[in-house]
Amino acid sequence: MTPGPIDQARAIVLLSGGLDSATCLAAARSEGRQCTALSVSYGQRHEVELDAARALAAEAGAEHVIISVDLGAIGGSALTGDGAVPHEPTAPESGIPITYVPARNTVLLSLALGLAEVRDASEVWIGVNAVDYSGYPDCRPEFIAAFQGVVDVATRATAAEGRHITLRTPLLNLSKAEIISLGVRLGVDYGRTLSCYDPIADRACGTCDACRIRLAGFADAGLTDPAPYATPNP
Amino acid sequence: MTPGPIDQARAIVLLSGGLDSATCLAAARSEGRQCTALSVSYGQRHEVELDAARALAAEAGAEHVIISVDLGAIGGSALTGDGAVPHEPTAPESGIPITYVPARNTVLLSLALGLAEVRDASEVWIGVNAVDYSGYPDCRPEFIAAFQGVVDVATRATAAEGRHITLRTPLLNLSKAEIISLGVRLGVDYGRTLSCYDPIADRACGTCDACRIRLAGFADAGLTDPAPYATPNP
Repeated sequence: MTPGPIDQARAIVLLSGGLDSATCLAAARSEGRQCTALSVSYGQRHEVELDAARALAAEAGAEHVIISVDLGAIGGSALTGDGAVPHEPTAPESGIPITYVPARNTVLLSLALGLAEVRDASEVWIGVNAVDYSGYPDCRPEFIAAFQGVVDVATRATAAEGRHITLRTPLLNLSKAEIISLGVRLGVDYGRTLSCYDPIADRACGTCDACRIRLAGFADAGLTDPAPYATPNP
Repeated sequence: MTPGPIDQARAIVLLSGGLDSATCLAAARSEGRQCTALSVSYGQRHEVELDAARALAAEAGAEHVIISVDLGAIGGSALTGDGAVPHEPTAPESGIPITYVPARNTVLLSLALGLAEVRDASEVWIGVNAVDYSGYPDCRPEFIAAFQGVVDVATRATAAEGRHITLRTPLLNLSKAEIISLGVRLGVDYGRTLSCYDPIADRACGTCDACRIRLAGFADAGLTDPAPYATPNP
């Protein structure tokens, strides 16, 4: 008996609308996955990145599910309304920055797990990256391994139906330049992505941590970022 | 040096407004915890249980935080709008019932974890119960142990600040009758709690699985349920 067509497996792909998640979606598609993109509207100050996610999902021909969760009720992050997003570089020794959203990836993966169960998906893809990241604890390999432990026991799919759901993190150990090179190879239109923590109208600010890391990544890859910025030559 | 007053520790207590979570809140208070009650409005068909949670938190003098998350966008459960809640007993051999909400406790604990971090809480209490439960996979001890593994690595508190957050599950191995006896001893006003999956106006139906388990628990404890039911002598 020949193995079944595993490349037709259904995957839930967390899609914020940023560079990393757009690359993650392209990676899942390049492996032949039937993708459902999941965006979580968690009280971000700006809905612009959800618009980017909508455009990316449509371009990929993927089903797009948006779940709203009011993380602003928890507070504690510049990204959900507590304090201003810094526009000066954050020194590495200063630790986890105020753009950290408490338990964000735990919440995102929980919602993706629920959707995976309902959609009979066998994989959940998340574009976390432990190299050129901002020091967030929930982007590290040990976090992903621990959450896989939850996935293995938490759902009807795994507990009663013997199905297995696997977390996929294709960007985990790539530098930002390597992520961009991979995405370009896979045809990602980075002009449609938005990584900025504090966009001005619908353009990236060019000066927050996320913009700095992104722009340095394009420079390291020997490429120019096609996304619109609010400042010329950021 | 004497140890600090650990009984003054802050705790996040998940409070649905049902019998189990009300007992859990009373247990946390009986250990001297400063409690923040967290209710998650997850697209339940009925908001009556949130009203019960508000009343219980107010009576306990606890801060009450409500977070909205649209689990209805995931679907797959009678409790978020897909299909009717059954009013006949569900046979144990029929497996996990359609009132199961995909990844529900994973989502609830994720949100509680984020709030614990922001509130400097050292504990998260959840009233899961693996004895007289409805066969939900995320009420089992192995689920709690796996989620503790996530807690240990997921947050700024645990990763950078060396704080420890512990999941507390005082009801895990109690029968429903034992939970009720504990709650009565701790002064829980069960007349204010609502466990029903499908209340009629603001009264419990008396015939869904949750009502059946609850009523059997009161009978086993030799007590009468003080909560209002839509049907006389359910």
